[in-house]
Amino acid sequence: MSVSLADIRDVAGDAVFTDGCPTRTVLDHVMSKWGVLVLLALSDGTRRWGVLRREVDGISEKMLASTLRTLEADGLVHRQSYPEVPPRVEYALTELGRELMERMLPLMEWIAANSAAMLTRTP
Amino acid sequence: MSVSLADIRDVAGDAVFTDGCPTRTVLDHVMSKWGVLVLLALSDGTRRWGVLRREVDGISEKMLASTLRTLEADGLVHRQSYPEVPPRVEYALTELGRELMERMLPLMEWIAANSAAMLTRTP
Repeated sequence: MSVSLADIRDVAGDAVFTDGCPTRTVLDHVMSKWGVLVLLALSDGTRRWGVLRREVDGISEKMLASTLRTLEADGLVHRQSYPEVPPRVEYALTELGRELMERMLPLMEWIAANSAAMLTRTP
Repeated sequence: MSVSLADIRDVAGDAVFTDGCPTRTVLDHVMSKWGVLVLLALSDGTRRWGVLRREVDGISEKMLASTLRTLEADGLVHRQSYPEVPPRVEYALTELGRELMERMLPLMEWIAANSAAMLTRTP
């Protein structure tokens, strides 16, 4: 493998991904069931709230709000509110969010390409 | 970005990552809080149960057992049991698991390198 766990420890120290380490906190935000799917939808471009709600299939309003707040606090997502009637709110990836998705999309492509075979294989 | 959501839909269809699609099921297994950390530990080599339990900081015995069963059923992890006294059980990535981690490790390296700045930034 081109990157190893040892490389990651070189970058971030031996405590990397241990309980309470900032790396674990961000990992939990990003690699969560809904975090991944919201970031994926935004990787395709700016989205209004209602569009995100439809595209992230199965997410509740409460979970979408909470996921967006977390990703915004991490600096991965930017929220833009327009003073219109009715109010319009749009979400987009920040530069940091785009950097993250450059690394996440190849992984998601691999999962998409291999899932069917994985679930139907005979052990 | 080199891979886009449109590319992923080309590979896996428009239903990719929707509720009930096999792609969503595998995504939920792999991109789960504990799935990621167990796969990361195994990317470093074969591990006995007790070593995994220590390395995946904070995981309960029950959650480790359940995570390993899921990853084994997906064909990502191989379980080898040796008829010794006391019995020895070792876990390792399969070829498929190694393919997955080739794509996941660059993402985890980026998260490790950027987490501290993300959590201390001023919005």
